[in-house]
Amino acid sequence: MSTILLQESAAAAPRGVPRVRTLRLALAGCGVVGGELVRLIALHEREIAARNGVRIELTRVLVRGSGRARPDGVADRLTTDVAEFLAAAAEADVVVEAIGGTDTALRIARTALGAGRRFVTANKALLAAHGPALMRLARRHRARLDFESAVGGGIPVLRALREQLPLTGIEAVRGVLNGTTNYILTRLAAGEPYTAALADAQAKGYAEANPARDISGHDAADKLRVLAWLAFGTHPARLPVRVRGIVPHPDRLAADAAALGGVPRLVAEARRAAAGITASVEPVVVAPGSELGQVHGADNVVVVESLHNGRVRLAGPGAGGAPTASALLGDVLRAARPLRSGAASADDGVEESAPHRWLLSVPRAPQAEARLLRVLERAGLQAPPVLRAADALRVVVGPAPWTHVDLALRAAEAVGLGPVASRLEVG
Amino acid sequence: MSTILLQESAAAAPRGVPRVRTLRLALAGCGVVGGELVRLIALHEREIAARNGVRIELTRVLVRGSGRARPDGVADRLTTDVAEFLAAAAEADVVVEAIGGTDTALRIARTALGAGRRFVTANKALLAAHGPALMRLARRHRARLDFESAVGGGIPVLRALREQLPLTGIEAVRGVLNGTTNYILTRLAAGEPYTAALADAQAKGYAEANPARDISGHDAADKLRVLAWLAFGTHPARLPVRVRGIVPHPDRLAADAAALGGVPRLVAEARRAAAGITASVEPVVVAPGSELGQVHGADNVVVVESLHNGRVRLAGPGAGGAPTASALLGDVLRAARPLRSGAASADDGVEESAPHRWLLSVPRAPQAEARLLRVLERAGLQAPPVLRAADALRVVVGPAPWTHVDLALRAAEAVGLGPVASRLEVG
Repeated sequence: MSTILLQESAAAAPRGVPRVRTLRLALAGCGVVGGELVRLIALHEREIAARNGVRIELTRVLVRGSGRARPDGVADRLTTDVAEFLAAAAEADVVVEAIGGTDTALRIARTALGAGRRFVTANKALLAAHGPALMRLARRHRARLDFESAVGGGIPVLRALREQLPLTGIEAVRGVLNGTTNYILTRLAAGEPYTAALADAQAKGYAEANPARDISGHDAADKLRVLAWLAFGTHPARLPVRVRGIVPHPDRLAADAAALGGVPRLVAEARRAAAGITASVEPVVVAPGSELGQVHGADNVVVVESLHNGRVRLAGPGAGGAPTASALLGDVLRAARPLRSGAASADDGVEESAPHRWLLSVPRAPQAEARLLRVLERAGLQAPPVLRAADALRVVVGPAPWTHVDLALRAAEAVGLGPVASRLEVG
Repeated sequence: MSTILLQESAAAAPRGVPRVRTLRLALAGCGVVGGELVRLIALHEREIAARNGVRIELTRVLVRGSGRARPDGVADRLTTDVAEFLAAAAEADVVVEAIGGTDTALRIARTALGAGRRFVTANKALLAAHGPALMRLARRHRARLDFESAVGGGIPVLRALREQLPLTGIEAVRGVLNGTTNYILTRLAAGEPYTAALADAQAKGYAEANPARDISGHDAADKLRVLAWLAFGTHPARLPVRVRGIVPHPDRLAADAAALGGVPRLVAEARRAAAGITASVEPVVVAPGSELGQVHGADNVVVVESLHNGRVRLAGPGAGGAPTASALLGDVLRAARPLRSGAASADDGVEESAPHRWLLSVPRAPQAEARLLRVLERAGLQAPPVLRAADALRVVVGPAPWTHVDLALRAAEAVGLGPVASRLEVG
């Protein structure tokens, strides 16, 4: 409790942190994502106070039922009464919606934005249907609408599309936008049957009990509508999207891709064509080493193709409570101007001394091998057999800290061996 | 001229765009990056007015010499007089520094920020040396310092590190941060000698006439200092970075990597260790299919490893005038609140009808092949030979628009064939 009701713990504030004010947060939904957000806020209490100058106070938490286990410190904030929550939302500094669906979520959004509050949501279905109207509402009431976590989980793609990339001449936005189906397709490609892959995805928390919106492609289509809206200004609800998911024959999709030497991916794509913006979500066979083929498991990737900025690829965790909650927290703190960001007072730099494996080489020359081995020995480096190639002698050493290798390199240089060292991240 | 002196062309403003105000911009540097910025501003004049409600007026352009060819419309704004430019900078709304170096650039930064202006720079060396002091100056004078283009060219990494990822528990930031050396290493790995690869990089505009800071690793080290500052709060100038570049034996680096089945990359890495933040820039042998091995040519990649957000990978063009200038323009317009962003009035959505290649399959069954071929023929799809596998019959069709394939699929479904279709991006 004390970690959340921060006014009560004011005495424990880090010294030297000025002007810590209270940020009242009303949270709708306390499941996988909402619960994780509560935990992250408690975990980062001091850092948030120091960096952003705010203490987050949870004022009300709307839940659908009261039976479920909840994180510490929210018990006396819980309510199942939507009207009561809406009253709290109208009074909060920030309202976070992580309850899903489009009925209650829309009422919360309208109440919060209509009252001039900041509204933060992870709800792609809400945005795909009502995003532009909510954005207009936000402007009219000098409110603010943020939704970084709605697409791509923890990948910072929406902020980039809203602020950094609009004037790069965007031609296409495409990618893998649904972590659940990508996890399943990855397992299918490894030879697992669909029923086992789906059960596994559910056990890991990637797929919900009812995975219909994921496997049908409609979750990815909602996300694509949001991307197309930001990239092209197309109204998300009016964009025709050709949607095909991975059902009803998921196992065959994987076998089909393998038959051509590829891997299956559920690809979402919006592209500028002569007549307007075209969009699709459908199974695609891609090369295993390709941009999309390299995205495994529950990861997502978004590729933005533009005239002035080439191809930008953003990849990372597309599902899971922690990445989504991290993105929500970033939005919550967005208006809280960083106090200390860039003040450079946090962590000291120290010399790098971790042990690594290294590849050393010298050109072939008379006596080179004997000299090299002597130099390595004096630097305390065990040298396995020398690889003798036409152009050079090579030896792999370590794991050893750089200081040892540096000693050997300097000695080798001093006797004219012309050594080169690379750190090894292979074999 | 008329595209830049926008006050003069007010009559040509797009209809229905409210409250277009003038944004006075003082630009230091009009070379590859600065010149491209001037061109982008002219190119996007109407879109900037509509989206951001501003018209950008170039008030003064500082150049080192007057001989070089400049973009249209800046001739009567040019000056080589630093004092004159500083006076203009103190009066501008935004000051963009693309002149490089740390002497004049620092004077410009201090003048702009000290006068409460917004200062936008692509200068990693300036930030690596003076970033925290400039940030404090900005805060003291309610000014603003932005530098998205300083690291990773057109990849939106700094904004993400400043705003979205700080509370994800960052453990490491690593990547390929220098497009010039990555271009050279990519060519070396393909068998080209160093002298030819360097000349090629210079001809393509990736490497400057004097590539010393690139090939020595110091350009990447400056960028790493900026990343570590934002990720960990470490003072960039006080972070010890072990720096080794690709010289003096670049050809051997590539041969060494190949001898172990890997590819060479100049890897920059900052990591949280028990004692503090450690940092290095050095040649590393990586697997060709790895995250860093997949980054070819002048591209950059930044990987952020964190406790709550897994691995986020951001990749894209790391060098070149257009990506850098696009990122500068994003920063310039950052404070100009988007008027129309999210209003959804730009591009219409249309049905996707582009021709693609498709893989169709049906399970093996009596008559299945004859039925499949009949269905394809009626849909007007040419069918090459059927691939007969133990589990299924497969056929590649197209290029054909989805409407034809959809027709065939529905017909096949109607006769109980159980068809599946994937779009093809292989072979």
